[in-house]
Amino acid sequence: MISHLAVFRWHDDVDPADVERLCAALATLPAQIPELASYRFGPDLGLRAGNADFGVLAQLPDAAAVATYLDHPAHQDVVRTFTSVMVAQRATVQFVSG
Amino acid sequence: MISHLAVFRWHDDVDPADVERLCAALATLPAQIPELASYRFGPDLGLRAGNADFGVLAQLPDAAAVATYLDHPAHQDVVRTFTSVMVAQRATVQFVSG
Repeated sequence: MISHLAVFRWHDDVDPADVERLCAALATLPAQIPELASYRFGPDLGLRAGNADFGVLAQLPDAAAVATYLDHPAHQDVVRTFTSVMVAQRATVQFVSG
Repeated sequence: MISHLAVFRWHDDVDPADVERLCAALATLPAQIPELASYRFGPDLGLRAGNADFGVLAQLPDAAAVATYLDHPAHQDVVRTFTSVMVAQRATVQFVSG
């Protein structure tokens, strides 16, 4: 299994309503992208100073499934509509996790 | 459950042997920190240009467990010995994931 982690820091003008719309869009992806073995996301809880604003955790069976997810039209639509506009800083990684 | 995601980009002088030593140290944490419901980590697979270098995924039952993990002497030892030296850029987030 491969864990895909994405950590975002928002632009200053992003508000909770934007984040809610993003979450609603992300929630539609598992049904459209069956390669997603698990898909979790959410706003930072504010437990530690210096944290970023939002995290996405996708579990996928292999590298091909990672590519399918990242390049999927539904995912690209979310990137185009939301994250490419909202995200000031992004950090992503994929590693073998089991 | 809370997902703690940490994504690291290394300094230029970090080599694979450093990463192996870090992984060996991280692997000792679950036995020392029972709050860790799940603990996965590893180097980026190089599937996408622009990715960071390393990811850590910890699943913890609640905010108190997140604090116990982050402040635990064994975790602090890894931070002091490895990541504070190796990491050029870090992005961390904790969000509710189930």
